[in-house]
Amino acid sequence: MALKLEPGTRLVVATHNPGKARELAEILEGRFQLVAAGELGLPEPDETETTFVGNALLKARAAADASGMIALADDSGLSVKALDGAPGIFSARWAGPEKDFAMAMRKVEERLEEVGADDLSAWFTSALAVAWPHGPAVVVEGEVHGVLSFPPRGDKGFGYDPIFLPEGLEQTFGEMAPEAKDGMSHRARAFVKLKAALL
Amino acid sequence: MALKLEPGTRLVVATHNPGKARELAEILEGRFQLVAAGELGLPEPDETETTFVGNALLKARAAADASGMIALADDSGLSVKALDGAPGIFSARWAGPEKDFAMAMRKVEERLEEVGADDLSAWFTSALAVAWPHGPAVVVEGEVHGVLSFPPRGDKGFGYDPIFLPEGLEQTFGEMAPEAKDGMSHRARAFVKLKAALL
Repeated sequence: MALKLEPGTRLVVATHNPGKARELAEILEGRFQLVAAGELGLPEPDETETTFVGNALLKARAAADASGMIALADDSGLSVKALDGAPGIFSARWAGPEKDFAMAMRKVEERLEEVGADDLSAWFTSALAVAWPHGPAVVVEGEVHGVLSFPPRGDKGFGYDPIFLPEGLEQTFGEMAPEAKDGMSHRARAFVKLKAALL
Repeated sequence: MALKLEPGTRLVVATHNPGKARELAEILEGRFQLVAAGELGLPEPDETETTFVGNALLKARAAADASGMIALADDSGLSVKALDGAPGIFSARWAGPEKDFAMAMRKVEERLEEVGADDLSAWFTSALAVAWPHGPAVVVEGEVHGVLSFPPRGDKGFGYDPIFLPEGLEQTFGEMAPEAKDGMSHRARAFVKLKAALL
């Protein structure tokens, strides 16, 4: 035997973030039957791990074991070089319970001013985990590198997208059409690895 | 494609614990060419995760990326019901830098006396992770349930084995012949799942 995801498999998508759920649906484009964890009434586990892969696994494992179905989870975030990788796995938490990313982006800008950073390098990471109920789990990671740009620009994407300029491009992730972002994003790059591993 | 481990593959075993390395070698019995992480001079990463699977992945990932070879890591420990799962992922740390498991076992006994526990239920968990260099990783978990028994008995096995009586048996893991322990241990059960997933 070997680990494999058959096309058309029903997958629980273990995210309660609508932006992520939409992007995963775009990227997986009809390969699988996606069911949202929220639709199944699955609880949102606490993200107690210290890495993206740890948290992605924890979420996929919880959803798979609770639903009895194969589950897919994403854990992702923005890491800023001059802030020693912050906000990193705390990216969503910087936005607070209100998920106020305008505030979170201001916080990034303020911290950069505090440390007097010249280097605005940053990268997005996405860990994608697939877990079989009470069985094995697979995890991959994708990254996209770029620089931060203030003030935020664009109302597409979600999270920190409006301040992230991918390397060599002039539009922020917040300004790019979904098809353009989906072609180069950290999430898309992680999915390429997942596909190479499991499809 | 599908994730698969071909028999005969060279695998780095990412453990610096000789007891674990020996048991993994016994369990893998000639299926793979095992290379110890220590032999390659790979550093031992800090186990910063909060779960067995998280730490197993972290060790496999570090060894795979540093060596360029597929890596296998184990993270395991003893969880005691009356101690809310302690020592759990801190099992090795309870033995201190000297790896003094006689002391660690006394600590378990003292804690049980402090809480006045009647229920001596406990279980061993092993998470096994396989990571491809800069690629995907697979992780599985195996458990074996039993009860604690004091004083420690037997000089086989390692770690907390002398105080662990597997369910329904009268010998501690410390008293059992390696072949007997390897047939039923948490590590062997995890390997059965890994085999089902990858072989």
